[in-house]
Amino acid sequence: MSIIDSLNWRYAAKRMNGKKIPQEKIDRILEAIRLAPTSAGLQPYRVLVVEDPELKKQISPIANNQPQITESSQLLVFAAWEKITQEEIDHYISYMADERDVAVTSLDGLKNSLYNVLNRPAELNANWMSRQAYIGLGVGIVAAAEEEVDATPMEGFNAEELDKLLNLKEKGLKSFAILALGYRDTTNDWLIKLKKVRVPSEEFFINY
Amino acid sequence: MSIIDSLNWRYAAKRMNGKKIPQEKIDRILEAIRLAPTSAGLQPYRVLVVEDPELKKQISPIANNQPQITESSQLLVFAAWEKITQEEIDHYISYMADERDVAVTSLDGLKNSLYNVLNRPAELNANWMSRQAYIGLGVGIVAAAEEEVDATPMEGFNAEELDKLLNLKEKGLKSFAILALGYRDTTNDWLIKLKKVRVPSEEFFINY
Repeated sequence: MSIIDSLNWRYAAKRMNGKKIPQEKIDRILEAIRLAPTSAGLQPYRVLVVEDPELKKQISPIANNQPQITESSQLLVFAAWEKITQEEIDHYISYMADERDVAVTSLDGLKNSLYNVLNRPAELNANWMSRQAYIGLGVGIVAAAEEEVDATPMEGFNAEELDKLLNLKEKGLKSFAILALGYRDTTNDWLIKLKKVRVPSEEFFINY
Repeated sequence: MSIIDSLNWRYAAKRMNGKKIPQEKIDRILEAIRLAPTSAGLQPYRVLVVEDPELKKQISPIANNQPQITESSQLLVFAAWEKITQEEIDHYISYMADERDVAVTSLDGLKNSLYNVLNRPAELNANWMSRQAYIGLGVGIVAAAEEEVDATPMEGFNAEELDKLLNLKEKGLKSFAILALGYRDTTNDWLIKLKKVRVPSEEFFINY
């Protein structure tokens, strides 16, 4: 399928059938997300992969008991760094120097531009980092569709409670979105037969 | 190419060769972005498609004279709604009712959940809407790679000045990212030969 066909095939399944996704498909979806670009390549977010049925049951009430939580095969939780520190920047720069086999000092330009970020308001940085996570979310949605795996992006959950349950605060993370991966329940999903609604091209794009 | 191959093929080209992208490729990239999901399907952002060379020249100093601005074939500017109003929600609900040929009142649940958004702080909503635009950005990056078109996401520009130049404020929009579309300059791009650096899987993913 082309990407257009895949995106037309997909929809945000409201009911899933509990079937497990083969591990090699999960691996390819995760690898696509890992390869997604981010500002300065920093990847200031992490992806929690929740497969444990007991944990999914505990997440359910935190996410308004939406059935995909427990009917999914895996939940991917996109969680951004709560803040950015000089330590993390230094770690990133030294990792890049290692990976590219270059002197750390050759990356001073990138390092200094990232150091400038440290002077910005913490909230602006948090919002900037959360946006980077959504690039990965977009890539993950396409990757799933190309594997003919259903993927339902969800923001309707209590982020604070989820962060508590998954101990995200102590990892310096804050959850923003869940991507439920699984297979549509063709019998019980009310959304399956409804037309996809999108803003018409002539309104969505503005040409210059 | 698989999505993994496409994502490994791509990188953020720092120099482009000025070659035009065939219109049918641009059309498919834009269609993929338009089909990208967003929270509640609202699509609270627009994509500016800049092809005019004169306008790109004016954008160049606003974007630190990064060469891709003028060497690209098209610039896509991802601009989110500055705020959300009841009028926009009503317009969306009535458009959805039309498209799905259902009574407007049958969508009261969705409408009321969107009305709740109106009670949240304006800044929280603005950040929420800007994240939705980044789902489209992620989808656009994959779509371009699958067309073997280079796509460089850029945040290094003065958003206020760009908004002024493109009259975005009067359209209720605020720019967040530029995606420069074109073809890598294989001779002059210093980044082309460098290894892609990504956080290792065992660090990027946390399993539960």
